[in-house]
Amino acid sequence: MNLPQGYRYSSIYAGIRKQKRDDLALIVSQPPASAAAVFTENRVQAAPVRIGRFHLEQSRGVVSAVLINAGNANCATRTGDRVALACCDAVAKHLRIPAEQAFPASTGVIGVELDASLITNALPKLIQGLAPSRFEDAARAILTTDTVMKTAHRKLTLRRRAVRIAGMTKGSGMIHPRMATTLGFVMTDAKLTPSLLASLLTRAVKRSYNRISVDGDTSTNDTLLLLANGASGIEPTDKELLKFEEALSEVLEDLAKQIVRDGEGARKFITIEIAGAASEDAADRLARAIANSPLVKTAIAGSDPNWGRIISAAGNAGVPFDPAKVDIHLQGVLVCQGGVAADFSESELKKKLDSKESLIQLTFHGRGSASARFWTCDLTEKYIEINASYRT
Amino acid sequence: MNLPQGYRYSSIYAGIRKQKRDDLALIVSQPPASAAAVFTENRVQAAPVRIGRFHLEQSRGVVSAVLINAGNANCATRTGDRVALACCDAVAKHLRIPAEQAFPASTGVIGVELDASLITNALPKLIQGLAPSRFEDAARAILTTDTVMKTAHRKLTLRRRAVRIAGMTKGSGMIHPRMATTLGFVMTDAKLTPSLLASLLTRAVKRSYNRISVDGDTSTNDTLLLLANGASGIEPTDKELLKFEEALSEVLEDLAKQIVRDGEGARKFITIEIAGAASEDAADRLARAIANSPLVKTAIAGSDPNWGRIISAAGNAGVPFDPAKVDIHLQGVLVCQGGVAADFSESELKKKLDSKESLIQLTFHGRGSASARFWTCDLTEKYIEINASYRT
Repeated sequence: MNLPQGYRYSSIYAGIRKQKRDDLALIVSQPPASAAAVFTENRVQAAPVRIGRFHLEQSRGVVSAVLINAGNANCATRTGDRVALACCDAVAKHLRIPAEQAFPASTGVIGVELDASLITNALPKLIQGLAPSRFEDAARAILTTDTVMKTAHRKLTLRRRAVRIAGMTKGSGMIHPRMATTLGFVMTDAKLTPSLLASLLTRAVKRSYNRISVDGDTSTNDTLLLLANGASGIEPTDKELLKFEEALSEVLEDLAKQIVRDGEGARKFITIEIAGAASEDAADRLARAIANSPLVKTAIAGSDPNWGRIISAAGNAGVPFDPAKVDIHLQGVLVCQGGVAADFSESELKKKLDSKESLIQLTFHGRGSASARFWTCDLTEKYIEINASYRT
Repeated sequence: MNLPQGYRYSSIYAGIRKQKRDDLALIVSQPPASAAAVFTENRVQAAPVRIGRFHLEQSRGVVSAVLINAGNANCATRTGDRVALACCDAVAKHLRIPAEQAFPASTGVIGVELDASLITNALPKLIQGLAPSRFEDAARAILTTDTVMKTAHRKLTLRRRAVRIAGMTKGSGMIHPRMATTLGFVMTDAKLTPSLLASLLTRAVKRSYNRISVDGDTSTNDTLLLLANGASGIEPTDKELLKFEEALSEVLEDLAKQIVRDGEGARKFITIEIAGAASEDAADRLARAIANSPLVKTAIAGSDPNWGRIISAAGNAGVPFDPAKVDIHLQGVLVCQGGVAADFSESELKKKLDSKESLIQLTFHGRGSASARFWTCDLTEKYIEINASYRT
C-alpha cells in the first residue's frame, strides 16, 4: 500500500453503535497538515459540520487530528455543538495540539443525543493504538450500512521523488452529492498550502463526488476532508501541480465509484454518459435526472432495455431539447435513433444487461458539445429492506 | 351513480395489450362539449398529447369524442402523429363529427409503434357499444398497472336544479405531476364556456393532481381533460361558479388521492402538511422534497418514526429555514420540537405508524403563514418488483 508519510491511524469500539464493531476512528498528522474541506449543502447541518468548518477557519486551514464516529450523526440534537467541541478539546489535550486543529466528523442516525463521555472515555486507548499501518482499521470503523471498506491510493513522482495520496470513504445510502457527500478523508504527504488545496479539492470533487447518486438524498453530515502534511518534503512545481491534481482526481473518482458500487441494495453499477449538450450544466442535469429516476433504475435492475423510460427521464430534467434529435445506446447497442426505436435484438440486449456494469449513453444533436459522466446503481428490493428497518 | 347527462361510454379489447382485457375506450358527448385540458410538462411529449392540444386549438375548445387506448403510449414512435390523426379521423367519420372534435389519449409502453388498424378495425363495434351506463367499463379500460378502478362523482344544485360531475382517471407509477398527471377525464353537464372551463381546471389541478407523487417521474402522456356539454341546460350564475369550482376540486382531489392510494406497491397513504412557510412556493417545495425522499418513504413503509430523515429531506428542498425553528408531528404525535427530539414513546408511535394512513406535519416558526398539503405513498419492495419487469 502506498501510504503517505507522517500520518498515524487508530480505531476502537466506543459503544456508540449497538453492533459491537469499531465505531470511533482517529487520524493524526505530524507535522500538522494543510487542510481543505467541502461540506453538505443540506439546510440541516450536523454539529460536526458546523464545528469542522469553524475550526478550519480558526486554524486557517491546518489540521493535526481527525476524530470520526459512526453510529450517531450528532445532528438535530440538543447538545450537538457542545459534544463536538468537548470531543475536539479532549483530543487536543491528549495530543497537545491547539483545539482548532482537531476536526470532527460523525455519521449515523439523526436526532439522537450523542453521549460525549463514550468518546472521551475511549480516547486514551484510541490514542495508544495510533500507528502508521492502521489505515484500514480506521477505514473500517467509519462505515455504517456499507458492506465493504472503501479506500484508494496513488503514488506519483514529483521532483523525481515519491509522493503519495491515500483516501478512505464511507457511504451507501442517502447519497446524492451537490457539494460533497458522505464522509471522505484523503491524505497526502505532498507540501501544499491550504488555499491551493481548497481549489484543487473543489475541482476534483466536481468530477467525482458530485457525479454520483444512490437515492437522491443528500445527508446532513457529508464531509470530504483533504490533508497535505508535506512529510515527503516535496512541494510540486507549478508544472507538476496538474499531475498532482490528476492523481487526486483519480483517487476521488475511485472512492466515489466505490460508494456507488456499494449503494444500498445495488447489484449493478450504472454509468451515464451525456454528449452534445448545450452546456456543462445542461449535461449534468440530464445525467442527474436519468440517474435519479426510479423507473430507469428498476428497469436496469430487471435487465429491461426500456429506453422509453430513459428518454422520458431526460425530458423531466428541465433542459430544452428536441426528442427527435436524440440517440440512445444501451451497453453500446443503439436502441433509439432520432427519438424512435432503432433496430436491435431485444433478447440479445437483455443478456448484455445482465452484466454487473451498465452503460447508458445519450447523444443530443444540434445543441452543443458539452458532455457529462455520472455514476449510479440499480434500485432493488434490498434497498427497501435496508431502509425500512434502519433503526429497528 | 350521479352521471352527467349527454355522455355515452364504451370499451372493447382491441388487441393493443397482450393481456386480454379491454384496452380501448370511447367517450362521446352530445351535444358537443366545451373542453379544457392540462398536459404533461415533460420535454418528450407523446403524439396524442400533441394532437390533443392541436385539436383543442382547431376546435376552439370543443370536444365531441374522446378516444383512449391503454397498452401503448404512442410516444417516441416513427408514426405517432399519423396514427393519432388517423384514429381521430376514423372516429370522426363514424360519428359524423369534425375531426378536430375528436380528442386522443394513450397510455402504456413508450417507444413501440402503435398499429392504427387495431384501433380503426375495433371502432365499429366500439361505437355500437356506446351507452350512458357504461361509464365504469370505460374507466376500467384505461387502466394499466392500476389495481383498482378510479372514479369520482359529485352532484350539486345550481339554479335549484341538479348538475353532475363525474370523473375517471388512471395512474399508479410514473406519477409526479407538475401540470397534470396520468390520464383523467372529467365530465359535467353544466353549461360553461371553454375559457371559463380552462381557468377552473387550472385552479383545481393546482390543489389536486399537482399535489401528488408516487415516484417523482412525470410521464410523457399525462393528460387531464374536462368536458362540459351543458346537457343539464344549467349555466351557473357568477355566484354559483364558486360552488361549482369547489365540487370540481373535490372530484379532482378524490381522483388524485385514488391514484396515490393505488401507487405501485403502496401499502400506506401519506399526507404531508406544511405550515408556516414563507410562501406557497416554499411550502410546496418543502412538501415535495419530503414526498419524494425514498428514505422517508421507506421509513414509513417500516413504521419507523425516523423524523431525522424528514427534517433532512426538508433541508434538501432548496428552501431557507432555521432547523432550530421546526416542529414535526407524526400521526399527531410531536416527535421533533425546535429541531431536536421531543419526548415521545417510540413503541407507541410505531404502533400508530402501522396504520394505512400516515400523517407528517411540519411547522416552521417565524417565516410566514403559507401552507401546503401533499399526498404520496410509501415505497415498498413491490414497487421494484412491478417496475423491474414491466415489459417482460
